Amino acid sequence: MERLDILGALSEEAGRLTRPYGSESMRLANERVAEWMRAAGMTARQDNVGNLRGHLGGSRAGGPTLLLGSHLDSVRDAGKYDGPLGVIVAIAAIQRLRDSARRPPFALEVLAFADEEGLRFGSTYLGSAAVAGTFDSADLDRIDARGISMREAMRHFGGDPDRTGDDRWTEGRPLGYVEVHIEQGPVLEARGMPVGIVSAIAGQNRYSLTFTGEAGHAGTVPMDRRRDALVAASEFVIAVESEAQKTPGLVATVGQLAVRPGAANVVPGETTVSLDVRHPDDAKRKASARRLLDISVQTAQRRNIDLTTRQLSENATVPCSPNLVAQLSRAVRDLGHPVHELASGAGHDAVAMSTLTDVAMLFVRCKSGVSHNPAESVEIADVGVAIDVLGHFLELLAQA
Amino acid sequence: MERLDILGALSEEAGRLTRPYGSESMRLANERVAEWMRAAGMTARQDNVGNLRGHLGGSRAGGPTLLLGSHLDSVRDAGKYDGPLGVIVAIAAIQRLRDSARRPPFALEVLAFADEEGLRFGSTYLGSAAVAGTFDSADLDRIDARGISMREAMRHFGGDPDRTGDDRWTEGRPLGYVEVHIEQGPVLEARGMPVGIVSAIAGQNRYSLTFTGEAGHAGTVPMDRRRDALVAASEFVIAVESEAQKTPGLVATVGQLAVRPGAANVVPGETTVSLDVRHPDDAKRKASARRLLDISVQTAQRRNIDLTTRQLSENATVPCSPNLVAQLSRAVRDLGHPVHELASGAGHDAVAMSTLTDVAMLFVRCKSGVSHNPAESVEIADVGVAIDVLGHFLELLAQA
Repeated sequence: MERLDILGALSEEAGRLTRPYGSESMRLANERVAEWMRAAGMTARQDNVGNLRGHLGGSRAGGPTLLLGSHLDSVRDAGKYDGPLGVIVAIAAIQRLRDSARRPPFALEVLAFADEEGLRFGSTYLGSAAVAGTFDSADLDRIDARGISMREAMRHFGGDPDRTGDDRWTEGRPLGYVEVHIEQGPVLEARGMPVGIVSAIAGQNRYSLTFTGEAGHAGTVPMDRRRDALVAASEFVIAVESEAQKTPGLVATVGQLAVRPGAANVVPGETTVSLDVRHPDDAKRKASARRLLDISVQTAQRRNIDLTTRQLSENATVPCSPNLVAQLSRAVRDLGHPVHELASGAGHDAVAMSTLTDVAMLFVRCKSGVSHNPAESVEIADVGVAIDVLGHFLELLAQA
Repeated sequence: MERLDILGALSEEAGRLTRPYGSESMRLANERVAEWMRAAGMTARQDNVGNLRGHLGGSRAGGPTLLLGSHLDSVRDAGKYDGPLGVIVAIAAIQRLRDSARRPPFALEVLAFADEEGLRFGSTYLGSAAVAGTFDSADLDRIDARGISMREAMRHFGGDPDRTGDDRWTEGRPLGYVEVHIEQGPVLEARGMPVGIVSAIAGQNRYSLTFTGEAGHAGTVPMDRRRDALVAASEFVIAVESEAQKTPGLVATVGQLAVRPGAANVVPGETTVSLDVRHPDDAKRKASARRLLDISVQTAQRRNIDLTTRQLSENATVPCSPNLVAQLSRAVRDLGHPVHELASGAGHDAVAMSTLTDVAMLFVRCKSGVSHNPAESVEIADVGVAIDVLGHFLELLAQA
């Protein structure tokens, strides 16, 4: 927890935590974390994109490597735990392993990713994509708010932007990638559980829907002559909630709504809403998305409103490795904690890493499910449980 | 209609009609309308705020005066009829009276108001308020988009801003104020009637309501743990429509809705909506407004959402004079047209004039109820009916 407080103070902004890719505060964070890696017996180096990598050789030369990690960058006005917790817990678990003078037959690599949030360049999974070998070098031309390109930022941070291909993992067969992360949701808190095991990272569909009726004078157009686009959109908003409530595992959200012309005395002529649909089961996500779009069409037709729908994105679910999940579950059970599997509704570095190897995640309970906010909070006892679980998981994996 | 086309071409903007207070196009409009007033046997003068006033003496010296009129200014990208129609119809009716060589025992004054829409200075009823004696001289300090004060604009237009008090009607007892105007709604078109008689100008309450729930990650907060401010606001939007649909004469509108934080992947934490409630019966308007606010409270409570409500304005209904309404109705009936009374949901110069004298209004059917838009359209035959009705109304009043 002290280490998380130290990292939490490394920021580009006074009084609040904002640690973007390639920043001075990021350099200081990498320096501190490298010290802690070395103190745990690991070698530490920074790769071209700026990931910090800690390595501990296994007892068997040429054996496989288990990858652990999370990210060290943050959003603007962030909390202290989203990202750094996973890195610090991994280092602590390895420290314990070393303290117990045992060494597993596999090597261990702690990946402290340089950029997951994409605050500076709008990129996502920059660090983990480089390790997975899916980094798109076209992203090097992205420009930050001050006109600095990612290429320049990377060079300034000590990497060679023309050699990001070298960051791809090639050092032996990976056993998998395991990431510890705060839940960013309220499920574990509600169930009174310190940790939970992620079954899958939910797939996601995003849409933009525009309802077009007829604008009119709020004083002169009688109710029975209106084609109010906002009322139609409001029916849809409620239907989205209602559908999601009756479909286990589904979360569906209208987070944006814009009304035109948007004057208090004008009946809305046009209303555009966003729709975000997530479910850990791809078939159920697709079916729910179809059902919600059907409802939007029915709502529009019933109200004589025109409807235009655009699909903005579709991402498949990333399932966690059954084998790694089983070992994590056993570690939790062995330590006397209740085992609970839950899907992650948010994306994580594990999504990018899943193209390289099997992935698994351990969620740590956080207060009120709050994240991306200074109010982000975890209990010290729960962090202890996460370290215990990860440490025991390493032992179980060593015996397997 | 030719005259309305001529006025429709007098604009500050090429290709569309925008005729604000005190503008060059307004000066040209006043010049043309003054010519037509004089051609109808009237004297014409411009007062300090810029209203053009046409006067025709009555057959009895010192007798009362009937006021007729509407406004000559427009909104941006306006139609040709909202305002000018009432002035042109009044002049045409007086022209006919003169052609028939009859002169009523009362004087006639056609008021072509300089500003009703408030496009330039955000003032409303500027012209008619000056005549009614309710013009607030503090408005003289209002500044337009180019930094010109109303005081300067008024002086530039030929008036003396320090003598607006002189514009107040003092020239003998007014018989009343009668305004012809396009309906700006679809009722007459739906009923197949050329004209309608306004029973009252509906009172209006305006509110701003803010629903505050809890923002959260759209992927990680399960449906049963959400306090979604937009869903609560959407329920309210639908309840507003539903209440208004079941309350005859009520129109209630949510024309604005703003979501915060307003990101596709964030559950809405706060949603602010506008509420506009109008009914020609003050008691029913007040009761409906109370009921809608009650519903907003119930909706918020049921969803564990906080609610803040601000009343922005409340205007009482302006009833039309039963005597003038009876004479207008008789004029319509005598000419073989169906008599239909309807409330005006929009405000008009008659609202300001009602503090000075009895008021009445004749609505003319307009296409699809469209106004404040170049698509604004009236039939030449309906304008003919309006001139006939107003002319016959003057005869009836002369006999009364």
